[in-house]
Amino acid sequence: MIRIGIVGYGNLGRGVECAVSKSDDMELVGVFTRRNPDTVSTRTGVAVYEMGKLDAMQNDIDVLVLCGGSANDLPKQTAELAEKFNVIDSFDTHAKIPEHFDRVNSASKKGNHISIISVGWDPGMFSLNRLYAQAILPNGNDYTFWGKGVSQGHSDAIRRIEGVKDARQYTIPVEAAVESVRNGENPELTTRQKHTRECFVVAAEGADLDRIENEIKTMPNYFADYDTTVHFISEEELMRDHKGIPHGGVVLRSGVTGFDNENKHVIEYKLTLDSNPEFTSSVLIAYARAAYRLHKEGQSGCKTVFDIAPAYLHTASGEELRKNLL
Amino acid sequence: MIRIGIVGYGNLGRGVECAVSKSDDMELVGVFTRRNPDTVSTRTGVAVYEMGKLDAMQNDIDVLVLCGGSANDLPKQTAELAEKFNVIDSFDTHAKIPEHFDRVNSASKKGNHISIISVGWDPGMFSLNRLYAQAILPNGNDYTFWGKGVSQGHSDAIRRIEGVKDARQYTIPVEAAVESVRNGENPELTTRQKHTRECFVVAAEGADLDRIENEIKTMPNYFADYDTTVHFISEEELMRDHKGIPHGGVVLRSGVTGFDNENKHVIEYKLTLDSNPEFTSSVLIAYARAAYRLHKEGQSGCKTVFDIAPAYLHTASGEELRKNLL
Repeated sequence: MIRIGIVGYGNLGRGVECAVSKSDDMELVGVFTRRNPDTVSTRTGVAVYEMGKLDAMQNDIDVLVLCGGSANDLPKQTAELAEKFNVIDSFDTHAKIPEHFDRVNSASKKGNHISIISVGWDPGMFSLNRLYAQAILPNGNDYTFWGKGVSQGHSDAIRRIEGVKDARQYTIPVEAAVESVRNGENPELTTRQKHTRECFVVAAEGADLDRIENEIKTMPNYFADYDTTVHFISEEELMRDHKGIPHGGVVLRSGVTGFDNENKHVIEYKLTLDSNPEFTSSVLIAYARAAYRLHKEGQSGCKTVFDIAPAYLHTASGEELRKNLL
Repeated sequence: MIRIGIVGYGNLGRGVECAVSKSDDMELVGVFTRRNPDTVSTRTGVAVYEMGKLDAMQNDIDVLVLCGGSANDLPKQTAELAEKFNVIDSFDTHAKIPEHFDRVNSASKKGNHISIISVGWDPGMFSLNRLYAQAILPNGNDYTFWGKGVSQGHSDAIRRIEGVKDARQYTIPVEAAVESVRNGENPELTTRQKHTRECFVVAAEGADLDRIENEIKTMPNYFADYDTTVHFISEEELMRDHKGIPHGGVVLRSGVTGFDNENKHVIEYKLTLDSNPEFTSSVLIAYARAAYRLHKEGQSGCKTVFDIAPAYLHTASGEELRKNLL
């Protein structure tokens, strides 16, 4: 059994708890939190510890799955824990991945452990599919579309506007743009042509709805470059119709082969997810299995999804995989 | 530069020739054939040798790409060449992969070389996507649909019927079935519910068309279990409208997460290919790059796509990949 520890108990941590509880080859040792452990109760009843307890439990844990945020938690936490533990994180600040990698790599090498960073679906499975498709079709173009799905960051940005009680923002790919790529037309697409944004807003009583709508639609970076629709709804409607955290998207590569570039090919990878955090957790758990195996082989250092042979992710043996899946 | 040799010069061999000629990090040493080399002229003008010349050219070739057929060529050829060369093949007789693997693995280990078998899109990229999706969503169902595309085997079967001069057969997925899977409905599908077959037949003058149509539609294994449509067309129409070798298909996995299995997820990988052999060649070439690198690292033995970390396929360095694709 692979003994898993969870650091951080938000949506992602709960998703990992669930995924581990359903994995035949894994068991959950505990949840580690910076909060007072007495205030945290887990869904499966697994023990909750304060972070400080980790040091003493080094021999009880095979892989730590770090479920904190990329803005404030992971940049420090992953590197700190990587010396003493095999660790997996879902660090998703694309621009800062190289420096994060270097820091975590040094720590892992020093402690002879394995770390795998930026695991999930983007970065993660989408990145993998960009790599495979580029390697196969070097002469071509990449496209990534996100959604339909809830963007937490954009929802938060709306909530910060005066007079807004709650909000939910959906990112939606423009279907005509996706179709054009699927048809191998290699369109050049602006930000506005790729995605639209749809906002469901609960306003405070008496708030100026026109002002709120205008503040949303003109917000730089978040909304100004998009066609944005704003719907004002009641708190009840928000809870009833927009409680879930669906997401997904599609990675496409359109390329040509042949001496005269006469043959077109399109590779498409598409995710349709009812729960963004639970799917991300499922990917994290598969890579935790890989980290455990790589560490057993005596390997060390920081890896990404690019460095992990697929067979390490699956519970079946190489022989079974060749027989049943190849 | 990675020095590539091609064994066998049919559609696949020509595709590899083209793909290598467009790769910045590869060069083509020669084409090796069992035919009289004087009767073979290559598209790029690269030298053609008889197979017997291979032994003397061991030091001139980094990777041999074997482009023969799975029925008669590869079962012997791959194992014979694997001791002296790094080899890649596209062996696609799914049921015989385990024994092929064992034979090739022994030869590669003996000669300290790398072999990668069953490379292409199915087996190959489709297999990879089945593995990744199962590892991430262990609680779910797999579906593979092929087409729309030309099946060489089914076209050949029609050509063997008396009175048939030429034929082209398309395998077509049933769109309603694909949609049902995409919607997470987990349908149980019979052979007939998954694919239809469409045949374009050039009959000899005076041939009994009703008999031919009946022989096609009732042919066991090939057509009897499918809804099959037969069109009789002229030789000119066949050459004009059905000259290409398009193919493709889709691998789907539909699975659930959550303590009550309450969240559905669908993973879809779809290929739309103008030229089946050229796309397969492009995959072969990417794995030839991996074989070269693994051999340089001192590894040996037989591998499949399951055993190769994705980064080995791409020309860019790990650092560049993390920066640009993760």
